[in-house]
Amino acid sequence: MKILLVGASGTIGSNVHDSLSKNHEITRAGRNGADVQVDIMDEASIRNMYEQTGSVDAVINASGSAGFAPLPELTPEKNETAINSKLKGQINLVLLGLPYMNDGGSFTLTSGIMMDDPIPQGSSAAMANGAIRSFVKSAAIEMPRGIRINSVSPNLLQESAERIGHLFAGFEPVPGGKVARAYQKSVEGMQTGESYEVY
Amino acid sequence: MKILLVGASGTIGSNVHDSLSKNHEITRAGRNGADVQVDIMDEASIRNMYEQTGSVDAVINASGSAGFAPLPELTPEKNETAINSKLKGQINLVLLGLPYMNDGGSFTLTSGIMMDDPIPQGSSAAMANGAIRSFVKSAAIEMPRGIRINSVSPNLLQESAERIGHLFAGFEPVPGGKVARAYQKSVEGMQTGESYEVY
Repeated sequence: MKILLVGASGTIGSNVHDSLSKNHEITRAGRNGADVQVDIMDEASIRNMYEQTGSVDAVINASGSAGFAPLPELTPEKNETAINSKLKGQINLVLLGLPYMNDGGSFTLTSGIMMDDPIPQGSSAAMANGAIRSFVKSAAIEMPRGIRINSVSPNLLQESAERIGHLFAGFEPVPGGKVARAYQKSVEGMQTGESYEVY
Repeated sequence: MKILLVGASGTIGSNVHDSLSKNHEITRAGRNGADVQVDIMDEASIRNMYEQTGSVDAVINASGSAGFAPLPELTPEKNETAINSKLKGQINLVLLGLPYMNDGGSFTLTSGIMMDDPIPQGSSAAMANGAIRSFVKSAAIEMPRGIRINSVSPNLLQESAERIGHLFAGFEPVPGGKVARAYQKSVEGMQTGESYEVY
């Protein structure tokens, strides 16, 4: 399959790339240094990316950021990062990518464990994650031409534990390879509307 | 208790008002004809509302809209209504309302059944509903001064069935009075971080 992997250089993205590149042709998109440059917060940039890639069999998004702040310090402004990136950025990859998706193709988005198992400073990220899960569940019933859509909700990755593990007290980190298999299931399987929770 | 009820004139809001006005002092806010005018899509309007109400013991939001469109026709622009109203509007009522909330008070937001039981044309609304549920769950763990936060996810109301029931094929409408009791539980009870699903 021809797979567009957005956020290919991140911790999740590189695990997904390692897992899927043996059997698929992967185009790596991201803000820097990838095959195609894209800023998912910018609709024009997303449109430009799809014009460069042309039609694809699968889109995987492993990118998207959110602001972290204690709830009493979370302002509407600080909440905008999650809305523009992790939430709208991912949804716009679907809405603007549909014309480029081959029949029977798939979108796979990324949410995260904080929506189910909240951590301090994580409300804005949790908001975006919950939005993605419910959007995917609903969008799946109306996808045209046999196109499927799922999301993956990873726990803290073992590969990220040293850098951000202090934010996830008591969480049991999961191997990146295990998370990558959820993306593989979404792309190579037949399910749709699912939230694959790799906890 | 002194309760600020946003969206008081709507179907849910008027049921909540009927249910809670016997035992509480309710300030009705909304776009028209209420005690206080507010447009939840406008941060300045929310700030102005709280300046008028002063401190409160509970905020209930029963307002918020979303665009309805078949997924293949949902554009980033059509998705903005749900983001600005049902999603950001509700969350900003919390973020901007915290300084006005009395110790031990509560926020109660509104999501909706489409996040769990999707309907055609409902992806944008489902997105906002899922965002609210996860935001509430996460925000609850960091609320200061014993303040609580919950959300209510109503099914189609019996009172709305004639007007919008055609969008909810096969759904069993619930009485508005039953939905109102979930808001009562949130305000008068002690739970926090809950999603009261009145299905």
